[in-house]
Amino acid sequence: MSDDSNIVYIGRKPAMNYVLAVITSFNTEGTKMVTLKARGRAITTAVDVAEIVHHRFMKDLKVDDITIGTEEIEQQEGGTRNVSTIDIKLSR
Amino acid sequence: MSDDSNIVYIGRKPAMNYVLAVITSFNTEGTKMVTLKARGRAITTAVDVAEIVHHRFMKDLKVDDITIGTEEIEQQEGGTRNVSTIDIKLSR
Repeated sequence: MSDDSNIVYIGRKPAMNYVLAVITSFNTEGTKMVTLKARGRAITTAVDVAEIVHHRFMKDLKVDDITIGTEEIEQQEGGTRNVSTIDIKLSR
Repeated sequence: MSDDSNIVYIGRKPAMNYVLAVITSFNTEGTKMVTLKARGRAITTAVDVAEIVHHRFMKDLKVDDITIGTEEIEQQEGGTRNVSTIDIKLSR
């Protein structure tokens, strides 16, 4: 990835942890675009993060693009199951 | 709403209930566009529904547009809290 673009993977931590990561990336690293990536239950957190950053901290932020998809995950007990994914692109 | 557009509100039921509602709307009611609307934890279910309908049942379906937002909800104990929302537009 180039220096002015960054990915934040959303997991099971509270939304505020990721909000801080996004703000830090924009403000101290000079990033122009941050992509939030999440799957499964973390999808809701990803939307929360985008909304909190946008409304509470960086009003000039734009939600550029949102894409959804499906990933196959290998299960420990064998076989695969499908999980939904989301990518939310934020830019300023 | 006009006859060829429909809204499916995603709640706490299993994704397959909503998948069936979407397919029924497209196939028996002649709908051209269905918007999935969800908030909070149901956001993940909304993405699941879009992906399942698209990949398993209606390959010709298109995800037209995804928008996210925030709604204020009145709390029983007084005051409000914010909840994230998603709208996923599907068309064929």
